[in-house]
Amino acid sequence: MKIAVLPGDGIGPEIVAEAIKILEVLRAEGISLELDVAPVGGAAVDQTGDPLPPSTLTLCEQADAVLFGAIGGPRYDTLPREQRPERGLLRLRKAMDLFANLRPAQVFPELVAASTLRPEVVSGLDILIVRELTGDIYFGEPRGIRTNGAGEREGFNTMVYSESEIRRVAHWGFQAAMRRQRRLCSVDKMNVLECTQLWRDVVTEIAPEYPEVTLSHMLVDNAAMQLVRHPRQFDVIVTGNLFGDILSDEASMLTGSIGMLPSASLNARGQGLYEPIHGSAPDIAGQGKANPLAQILSVAMMFRYSLHRSDLAERIEEAVRSVLAQGIRTADIAQAGEGIVSTGQMGDAVATAL
Amino acid sequence: MKIAVLPGDGIGPEIVAEAIKILEVLRAEGISLELDVAPVGGAAVDQTGDPLPPSTLTLCEQADAVLFGAIGGPRYDTLPREQRPERGLLRLRKAMDLFANLRPAQVFPELVAASTLRPEVVSGLDILIVRELTGDIYFGEPRGIRTNGAGEREGFNTMVYSESEIRRVAHWGFQAAMRRQRRLCSVDKMNVLECTQLWRDVVTEIAPEYPEVTLSHMLVDNAAMQLVRHPRQFDVIVTGNLFGDILSDEASMLTGSIGMLPSASLNARGQGLYEPIHGSAPDIAGQGKANPLAQILSVAMMFRYSLHRSDLAERIEEAVRSVLAQGIRTADIAQAGEGIVSTGQMGDAVATAL
Ligand SMILES: CC(C)[C@H](C(=O)O)[C@@H](O)C(=O)O
Ligand SMILES: CC(C)[C@H](C(=O)O)[C@@H](O)C(=O)O
Repeated sequence: MKIAVLPGDGIGPEIVAEAIKILEVLRAEGISLELDVAPVGGAAVDQTGDPLPPSTLTLCEQADAVLFGAIGGPRYDTLPREQRPERGLLRLRKAMDLFANLRPAQVFPELVAASTLRPEVVSGLDILIVRELTGDIYFGEPRGIRTNGAGEREGFNTMVYSESEIRRVAHWGFQAAMRRQRRLCSVDKMNVLECTQLWRDVVTEIAPEYPEVTLSHMLVDNAAMQLVRHPRQFDVIVTGNLFGDILSDEASMLTGSIGMLPSASLNARGQGLYEPIHGSAPDIAGQGKANPLAQILSVAMMFRYSLHRSDLAERIEEAVRSVLAQGIRTADIAQAGEGIVSTGQMGDAVATAL
Repeated sequence: MKIAVLPGDGIGPEIVAEAIKILEVLRAEGISLELDVAPVGGAAVDQTGDPLPPSTLTLCEQADAVLFGAIGGPRYDTLPREQRPERGLLRLRKAMDLFANLRPAQVFPELVAASTLRPEVVSGLDILIVRELTGDIYFGEPRGIRTNGAGEREGFNTMVYSESEIRRVAHWGFQAAMRRQRRLCSVDKMNVLECTQLWRDVVTEIAPEYPEVTLSHMLVDNAAMQLVRHPRQFDVIVTGNLFGDILSDEASMLTGSIGMLPSASLNARGQGLYEPIHGSAPDIAGQGKANPLAQILSVAMMFRYSLHRSDLAERIEEAVRSVLAQGIRTADIAQAGEGIVSTGQMGDAVATAL
């Protein structure tokens, strides 16, 4: 099993190092894993001037899975658009056709107190957001900044979805719902945007193929409210790239432990990119404060979705659960009075539990 | 002072009736108010086939202010797009050029317990969202559903802002911040969308005109998170039409009392449309259960922004506060064990307090 490892920027390298500890434990058991490390994001800009160098892209395309850390930092914010770290990630998603982005928002029983929501509202929360990742206004053309008829600057982008783009990610939503509580909520803004009217139409057309799934539709503004009002009403949410970006970040913050949440981005060939939901946190980089659990849980998702070893995914998830049950906490998930471990100590604890 | 009254659908007529009680109290004191009632939304579709009949639009254009209830209902969801109730509202906003939408999200001390967030996170919360309301992807052309080169349906919309559109609403944001805590956060998605890169550039260009305001910028996904994580960090938020739709609904739900929140939509001539943030709630329409306070507080905003009588705005707000302090509650804001009053009783209580 070939894994491309892209640590990236900020806390990326530190937390990826802990994920590699987990992979080493499995390798010592005889699991065959080939790891190849390559630069991406700001680190790649520093080395090559390009946030996604051709050699990194080739490595990813030839791998079974990509383990991705995090990218970005204030140093890179003033670069021209094509050199900004996030362009590397966007181009990688598009080049590998990673259209299905799975983002779980889950509250761990031991960490209910970390949420800003009342415990009775969020305990047991377990939402899966299926976000389309290679279409929508993220990639739509035409786009840019031009001079309009009045001689003023005018910025413009194009939101666009074809029915096949909607259909393939909608199937992912229905199939994920089949493996869970069988409730799928499709989010759009059909009352204003024709593009998302088509979204609703296509999702509705597919529904009869999944008679066991209860499908509902919700407008994006209402969804942003309902996530705060009563988040447990949701099982699986499927939505477009832009709305998914906003709602999945909102949902992950409801859990109070964004340092715990992994994500997967998959293509039709089963290749996937696995990364934490959180960012590169430049403010704490290099200090041993980062929580590596989202990165480690991303490894679990990688075994489940790309490497066809759900047994290993479950072992890793179980190891994380047992470490939490032992009361081991990095700073971000510790309550007042709880002892705090470093990034490396947390990784060691999970490796030991495994 | 000429006021166009558009009750609309669902609970709209009930809560507008209570707002009129307040206006009658002021009229009895000698304040000259001319009220003209006209249909809008589903009610107008039923009568004329058009959610914004020409006579309603003319009345609004000739008024100093529009008092708007709520629109929409399941009966109208299957109508052709042009006849849907929300098209009436969108066309009215555009025709009157109501580009500055002010949406306060405020936690009333007596109602902290109604929020799903922990009291220590939301008590004292007081955010003002300034949402651009006549541009962006809501009105951008081209738009529609076409057949693409592959013979498939494809939905598309155009996000577009010119610098003058950004500038006028940004000024509103800065000026609102000057009257408050002097902190303005502009929200965009500049790392992906050129349209919002221009947004950030123009807001930044204006900032030197307001040296006393501390300006920050935030990406929309992060803003959706920060509203949950630490909402009190915000004073005034300024953003585009689409992001403002989503974030203002999220912010209003943080307060736990969406039945309490008014809004104003203003044009450059000082005309304004005043409406509750909540919707038409068809499920409880006609039962006397609706909370009229958002509509009554919309009347207060109307006196402040269009009728130049801040003194009356403050009297109305004070009357609402005193009614809350007396423990008078409609069902939506009552805690277990508290007595519940009807829509009409709540309106009477405020009128008496006034
Ligand atoms: C970095 C940025 C381009 C990216 C996105 O908007 O997709 C990020 O917010 C995410 O959600 O992975
Ligand atoms: C009804 C709808 C078109 C409208 C909008 O999206 O602007 C509503 O959600 C609002 O926020 O006033």
